[in-house]
Amino acid sequence: MEFTIQQIAGMLKGEVRGNGQEKINMLGKIQDAKKGQIAFLANPKYEQYIYTTQASAVIVKKDFQARKEISTTLILVEDPYSSFTLLLEEYHRAISFQKSGIEEPSFIGKNSTIGKDCYRGAFSYIGNHVKIGDNVKIYPHVYVGDNVVIGNNTILHPNVTLYADTKIGSNCVLHSGAVIGSDGFGFAPQEDGSYKSIPQMGNVVIEDNVSIGNNTVIDCATLFGDATIIRKGVKLDNLIQIAHNVEIGKNTVIAAQSGVSGSAKVGENNMIAGQVGIAGHLIIANNTSIGAQAGISKSIKEEGQRILGYPAFDIKEYFRSYAVFKRLPDLNDRLRELEKKVNQANGVTEAREANEG
Amino acid sequence: MEFTIQQIAGMLKGEVRGNGQEKINMLGKIQDAKKGQIAFLANPKYEQYIYTTQASAVIVKKDFQARKEISTTLILVEDPYSSFTLLLEEYHRAISFQKSGIEEPSFIGKNSTIGKDCYRGAFSYIGNHVKIGDNVKIYPHVYVGDNVVIGNNTILHPNVTLYADTKIGSNCVLHSGAVIGSDGFGFAPQEDGSYKSIPQMGNVVIEDNVSIGNNTVIDCATLFGDATIIRKGVKLDNLIQIAHNVEIGKNTVIAAQSGVSGSAKVGENNMIAGQVGIAGHLIIANNTSIGAQAGISKSIKEEGQRILGYPAFDIKEYFRSYAVFKRLPDLNDRLRELEKKVNQANGVTEAREANEG
Amino acid sequence: MEFTIQQIAGMLKGEVRGNGQEKINMLGKIQDAKKGQIAFLANPKYEQYIYTTQASAVIVKKDFQARKEISTTLILVEDPYSSFTLLLEEYHRAISFQKSGIEEPSFIGKNSTIGKDCYRGAFSYIGNHVKIGDNVKIYPHVYVGDNVVIGNNTILHPNVTLYADTKIGSNCVLHSGAVIGSDGFGFAPQEDGSYKSIPQMGNVVIEDNVSIGNNTVIDCATLFGDATIIRKGVKLDNLIQIAHNVEIGKNTVIAAQSGVSGSAKVGENNMIAGQVGIAGHLIIANNTSIGAQAGISKSIKEEGQRILGYPAFDIKEYFRSYAVFKRLPDLNDRLRELEKKVNQANGVTEAREANEG
Repeated sequence: MEFTIQQIAGMLKGEVRGNGQEKINMLGKIQDAKKGQIAFLANPKYEQYIYTTQASAVIVKKDFQARKEISTTLILVEDPYSSFTLLLEEYHRAISFQKSGIEEPSFIGKNSTIGKDCYRGAFSYIGNHVKIGDNVKIYPHVYVGDNVVIGNNTILHPNVTLYADTKIGSNCVLHSGAVIGSDGFGFAPQEDGSYKSIPQMGNVVIEDNVSIGNNTVIDCATLFGDATIIRKGVKLDNLIQIAHNVEIGKNTVIAAQSGVSGSAKVGENNMIAGQVGIAGHLIIANNTSIGAQAGISKSIKEEGQRILGYPAFDIKEYFRSYAVFKRLPDLNDRLRELEKKVNQANGVTEAREANEG
Repeated sequence: MEFTIQQIAGMLKGEVRGNGQEKINMLGKIQDAKKGQIAFLANPKYEQYIYTTQASAVIVKKDFQARKEISTTLILVEDPYSSFTLLLEEYHRAISFQKSGIEEPSFIGKNSTIGKDCYRGAFSYIGNHVKIGDNVKIYPHVYVGDNVVIGNNTILHPNVTLYADTKIGSNCVLHSGAVIGSDGFGFAPQEDGSYKSIPQMGNVVIEDNVSIGNNTVIDCATLFGDATIIRKGVKLDNLIQIAHNVEIGKNTVIAAQSGVSGSAKVGENNMIAGQVGIAGHLIIANNTSIGAQAGISKSIKEEGQRILGYPAFDIKEYFRSYAVFKRLPDLNDRLRELEKKVNQANGVTEAREANEG
Repeated sequence: MEFTIQQIAGMLKGEVRGNGQEKINMLGKIQDAKKGQIAFLANPKYEQYIYTTQASAVIVKKDFQARKEISTTLILVEDPYSSFTLLLEEYHRAISFQKSGIEEPSFIGKNSTIGKDCYRGAFSYIGNHVKIGDNVKIYPHVYVGDNVVIGNNTILHPNVTLYADTKIGSNCVLHSGAVIGSDGFGFAPQEDGSYKSIPQMGNVVIEDNVSIGNNTVIDCATLFGDATIIRKGVKLDNLIQIAHNVEIGKNTVIAAQSGVSGSAKVGENNMIAGQVGIAGHLIIANNTSIGAQAGISKSIKEEGQRILGYPAFDIKEYFRSYAVFKRLPDLNDRLRELEKKVNQANGVTEAREANEG
């Protein structure tokens, strides 16, 4: 990436204050950026640095009022943070993801079709009857099982495993070690106390714009024709467990190490924190917010709740209860004290009554 | 798979009502199966669909009494669900697992022997002095370290890693990303506050009919001759941690994301839910049932207990305590109220006594 | 390894009692070691075995006093356990890690340099502009992205993935399935309820003597020039999540399945148990000890604390509160009982006052 400040301002629909012809070849942080770099100022805490920064340009808010002299060139925009993010993205696209072509050795089975401009890394494996769209990146050590379908612009990072019959949409990113479409955990108890595995014949369907974290696992559905479904725009962090027949609703975000048990249906736009557990067959309403380490053992029917604890309930009430929990020994002592007093008082009263009786 | 209904009925020891000569080539669900498919009816909730299904055949219970006219062919059996499961299994065997032969490039070291009818996927790696039984499936990107022994009919899915000296029985299934026999987490504290790693020289022994989930990790034992042992019939779900020197008893089932710390001995036929933690060196009795997210910090000596919480205790008592926990602020208020009353009353009493004294 | 007992004693700076010329070729446990093996006695519980062991030599404490006749040769040392550990280590070095050279097929990109005496397993992948030190072991299926730097003597076990720009020090061990430098979980909410991924442009820096467990994930920092940092001597167990921009201080030890959220700074010499969760942006003081399954939602400012619970507080207080929690239904009953008594008593008092009034 090498652009003039003017060109970048054009990209960001911003206005230049200073020398628009200077060249930018790198992004940086305002406090330690060097000549040739562009930085941004969004948080007022960092304003001090704009007066001393070595950055060639700084992206600032339209209404920014300098309180001292500034030597760097400014780009004035509506939202500096978003603009910087956009630049990062462009940079990313331009530099990091330029992998293309086929590295050898790589393996491809029979009757598989691959779109235009794809990358297939060395040691990647593609089975039979696979259909892959355009501009897909398949990094080294990726395994794509038979009959898998993958949409355009999707990225499979190293060591991703897609079991047979998995369907993945466009613009998805699957991070290293993610496993999609593996057998669900289904075992029928036998009379002798052992378990017989129930064959898992469904698949996993991942819609467009989904992100799947490293070493996250999504099991396939049990029966033919059924699918474990990850809806459009879902973002799953690392080391998450999604069991068989689960459905995760549109734009729901789940943080690392959470687990969703078999056949649970999680609604849209949920925010689920880390290390949360959701029991099987539950239904979680849209816009639910679940605090870290919570355990969900009942369906959440009302939308927009914030919950915590195990079993989880309203987060504010949880914290109120927990505040008392921390003082429970004291509470216990007070109760014991009170019992003593009351019993003494009763003793006095009873004694008095006996006297007066 | 293409069989007549009559052939399938024979396989299931069932009785045909209708045209036994029709061909079946697929399994389906009663509510959306098509011609050529076979479905089952076990749950009365679905009975309505038997009168409208397009399935060519439906497996029903022997004593099923139709309340309307039925156009599909029936197969009457003792237990429709089990029968359907059996079919699924046969289908699975017939279709999905037909991988065989050697794909290239694959790697095999010195002095390793491989049985009959095995599959070795491209990019699979087999070290030196390895012994592999008959009909074993080794998918692409599997790593089998030196001196490993694997029994008959075992399946290693893509990306499974077996460290040197691991022993795996027959009829086991190891899912993608599972790591077996890695170094345990053993470090000796040094005077300067740093840690020196203690070499881990034992191995892992996995007996027959064991299933290991995706990205699950089983560490090796510390000392020579010692083993971390997974007994016959154990089923481990995804993302589980089994530390060094652990033993998991026969037919115990552990759900996703649970962890068992070093040297713990888990009994037979335990049911351990998801995200459970078991501390080191504990002994867990047979037939223990541990609820989700529980933390076990003491040995469980009595068999057949159901426990929850951290530290875990009887599950019913946990829920009773938790019911009060949810009302703790109220309880606290009531206690404060009562203190006030008692102190006032005492004040009154004391005042009276003073008056009367 | 084949040494005389005398040679081993020399290595351990110990003194021989018995036949120092006997040959040792294996290590074993005192209770079942055979001729040619060396064992150790540290725990008095095992003293009985020293009188019957078949081991050719046993390492014992300098001041050990036999109470019966002993037929094995003794090596007297300051600390038998440490000495045995040292032997194990030597053995390990000598036998297990002797992999060297290049197995084919393996892949190496452009402009990458590799030091002396390295091992590169079959199907290992090294990208462009990579710098690898001396005596590094790169097992099969390892992926090393562009611009990665690795110090001397570091071991990358099978299936380790290093994203581009990762920096790893000397004497580190990365276990199978570990993923280093993957994109952090950063998404900017959009007006339509969807999320746009924020490009993650920083990297991960791992200092010397660090151990990273199997399937553990460490995300890269968000901005250019920033790093997620794992300091010298840190030991991370299996299945751990370290989010973007985290820093883990020197010699801190974290047990399996714990997670540290974005931008948290964990101090030095912490002991963090399994399944712990640490929220984003917190600072954890040095020498903090965090109990299993704890959830940390506030910074820990004072050094040397031991904490538990969610939110976590002092571990002893937690257990005191939890002891009362287990009896909460009883506490509730006692409170109700007392309310009844007090109300009755008040009734009596009020009645009396009414009478006397």
